[in-house]
Amino acid sequence: MNSKRGNRVAVVGGGLVGCVHALFLAKRGFDVTVIERRGDPRRENLYAGKSINLALSHRGLTALSKLGLDKIALSIATPMRGRMMHDETGNLTYQPYGINNEAIYSIGRIELNRVLIDAAEPMPNIRFLFNRKVNYVNVYERLIAGYDEVKKEDFSDTYDYIFGSDGAYSVVRQALMKTDRFNFSQSYLDHGYKELRIPPADGGGHRIDPNALHIWPRGKYMLIALANIDGSFTCTLFMPFSGDPGFDRIKDAQQLESFFKANFPDALDLMPNLLEDYFENPTSSLITIRCQPWNYKNNVMLIGDASHAIVPFYGQGMNSGFEDCNEFDKLLKKYNGELSEEMFAEFSASRIPNTNAIAEMAVENYLEMRDGTANPMFLLRKRIEHKMASKYPDQWIPKYSLVTFSNASYSKAQAIGRKQARIMDKIMLHSKIEEIWDSPEIENEILELVSSS
Amino acid sequence: MNSKRGNRVAVVGGGLVGCVHALFLAKRGFDVTVIERRGDPRRENLYAGKSINLALSHRGLTALSKLGLDKIALSIATPMRGRMMHDETGNLTYQPYGINNEAIYSIGRIELNRVLIDAAEPMPNIRFLFNRKVNYVNVYERLIAGYDEVKKEDFSDTYDYIFGSDGAYSVVRQALMKTDRFNFSQSYLDHGYKELRIPPADGGGHRIDPNALHIWPRGKYMLIALANIDGSFTCTLFMPFSGDPGFDRIKDAQQLESFFKANFPDALDLMPNLLEDYFENPTSSLITIRCQPWNYKNNVMLIGDASHAIVPFYGQGMNSGFEDCNEFDKLLKKYNGELSEEMFAEFSASRIPNTNAIAEMAVENYLEMRDGTANPMFLLRKRIEHKMASKYPDQWIPKYSLVTFSNASYSKAQAIGRKQARIMDKIMLHSKIEEIWDSPEIENEILELVSSS
Repeated sequence: MNSKRGNRVAVVGGGLVGCVHALFLAKRGFDVTVIERRGDPRRENLYAGKSINLALSHRGLTALSKLGLDKIALSIATPMRGRMMHDETGNLTYQPYGINNEAIYSIGRIELNRVLIDAAEPMPNIRFLFNRKVNYVNVYERLIAGYDEVKKEDFSDTYDYIFGSDGAYSVVRQALMKTDRFNFSQSYLDHGYKELRIPPADGGGHRIDPNALHIWPRGKYMLIALANIDGSFTCTLFMPFSGDPGFDRIKDAQQLESFFKANFPDALDLMPNLLEDYFENPTSSLITIRCQPWNYKNNVMLIGDASHAIVPFYGQGMNSGFEDCNEFDKLLKKYNGELSEEMFAEFSASRIPNTNAIAEMAVENYLEMRDGTANPMFLLRKRIEHKMASKYPDQWIPKYSLVTFSNASYSKAQAIGRKQARIMDKIMLHSKIEEIWDSPEIENEILELVSSS
Repeated sequence: MNSKRGNRVAVVGGGLVGCVHALFLAKRGFDVTVIERRGDPRRENLYAGKSINLALSHRGLTALSKLGLDKIALSIATPMRGRMMHDETGNLTYQPYGINNEAIYSIGRIELNRVLIDAAEPMPNIRFLFNRKVNYVNVYERLIAGYDEVKKEDFSDTYDYIFGSDGAYSVVRQALMKTDRFNFSQSYLDHGYKELRIPPADGGGHRIDPNALHIWPRGKYMLIALANIDGSFTCTLFMPFSGDPGFDRIKDAQQLESFFKANFPDALDLMPNLLEDYFENPTSSLITIRCQPWNYKNNVMLIGDASHAIVPFYGQGMNSGFEDCNEFDKLLKKYNGELSEEMFAEFSASRIPNTNAIAEMAVENYLEMRDGTANPMFLLRKRIEHKMASKYPDQWIPKYSLVTFSNASYSKAQAIGRKQARIMDKIMLHSKIEEIWDSPEIENEILELVSSS
């Protein structure tokens, strides 16, 4: 169909998803140019105080393992096997993530990016162009133009295929927006986030348990902390932009300290640099992006945040992007390595329902994390579900496990999760559920509800 | 609050909503400049073959009457008191729109635009700048820049307040999109439309009843016709872009004729210019636009299609835009004529739920028009509703009447409509509803359901 097309592929955006996609395409023989706005993360310190720590889990690891990169990624990651909830007085409650001791892995964005670039560099058919700011993409001519910030000159080039992995504010997507009947939405939460830090203990090592994701759930807002391998924790405060509480209410050191003293006293003790971190780091917004289709013919395809940026509360942003790359590779195999128009259309159509599903689940999980995890009835509900999952692993796989510890489609995980939620809503209506939750009657009722419909 | 601000207002877009808004603002003493991309519609023929005829109804007339322009508008309009459905063999079924013989009014976009500009022209504090293409808006500086196509030179100017009434593809909205946390979506139907025409009868006058909106409902597609005062009808074919049927399947005169012969034989007889119209007029797309907020502080505000373009199936695009202007004027009165930041925020927050509601109802009404109107059970359902509305006008005001013949908020109309739909779903389940629909039992059941909850 495109017999005159060559195999020169541009990947716009050399972040995590761009690198993984470049590696997959290079392994299938394409000549891949990765065009990245920032400098080489192996030579520059690109920390910008707004990363949100990443939680690598099964879907991401599945893609990395196909590239032979799972072990090296895990070597720079910290396993987290559950949530550790901190209440207002510092009391802890622990909740395992999995039924079988599964973990999610706290990993630094920059560190993983370095690993991926290192893996790509020896390949003769991947080339990285750093410090190139893409300003313009022509989807019809497959042309990319921009500014080379090192040479201080404009650049432009055409490619046979263009992939946009350039994030939530994608320039490639802006070009697609001008094509006919491109459906698009961007929606923001009224809540923002600010990155903070718990430094390593004086003698080295972590000040709190590194093998849990720490949550200070406070109803309308929350603080979380994920361990880094250097002994520090990256913390994130999620809160409304305005109101009470709200970022706009904390204007000076005193207001900050009294807010933390009242709400996160144990965290305050662990954060000697709170004042600087809080007032120097930006307050960032939380966006959800959807579009349809992701492609223009077989000229241009969006992947990762560029086509489906999601909020971070399910830990699936990077994982869903890596799954894009893996699914694209599987489809490419089915199409005998040909990047045809049909293949592009099928990829877009098959991924969108799944990324819509995880987008919705991610927004819902914010409420669960900030509110539910502090609620005794929520904890009981989780205990019942945990019991069912342990005792009847074939009949009850929790939604969290389907999303996090399996490669089941997000749509399927969402559908099963909805059914489970309806069942548990019903079970929790029993007036003495606190007393009878562990009874055979409740167990049988759940099993019957699971097998019906 | 803005004591240094003057009263120079720019209205970007001199279409119907822009003109009505300019008139309202001028009556409150603001100095208004209307900046319009096209030429003066009183001096140029701007017909572009893609207008969709407009149905002026109560909300639009309410705004026009406040400006003293309802009578002149009605003088160039044709009342339509019901739907006239045409089946495949040309048989007609008539359904009145209102309970009390109310009408909606077919009116030409250009003709109404001319009336509005004529009304504005004598006012010393409204100025029209035609043939100015706005390319850039700076919401912080309140600056508008573009190209003057008559003088062939760039222009730029700052204003105290900027209103964007520049339609679904608004340039003003593009500027708002760059502000922080601007929520936006554009979504297209898979169906498009093409404008066609029934010319006047040979001796003048209309070839079919001008006082009805004609519909040829065919399930997945439909043709409609609205009368013009010159004796012609503007017709619109709505159909999927691709598939069977689909615009992409009609490639030549023979395919076109056999499609019309099979599906719209009576319309075909009325359209001597079908071939030219069909292949010369564009196939246009049907977009829904949503955004939130509509404003940036009290610098910039969007109104009309720029903030809430909707599909045409409820005949509320222009009417909802005129209602924007009227609601803005009412709020401005409440704020003593001050265009304050609070006033802008309140307007945006109060209008959005209502324009979201009509956007949803408009999409739903496509299904009803193209499918429901050809369905005997749908017609029976409407007959029952009509009976209830006639007999119990306080208990049962149909959703269509609330939307079209009242100024009740769209949100309220939608909520009442949903309740009525639930009631009628239940009523239509009676196995012998065709026989018992007119019985006192059914009547009482409906009245009970209305008064409950």
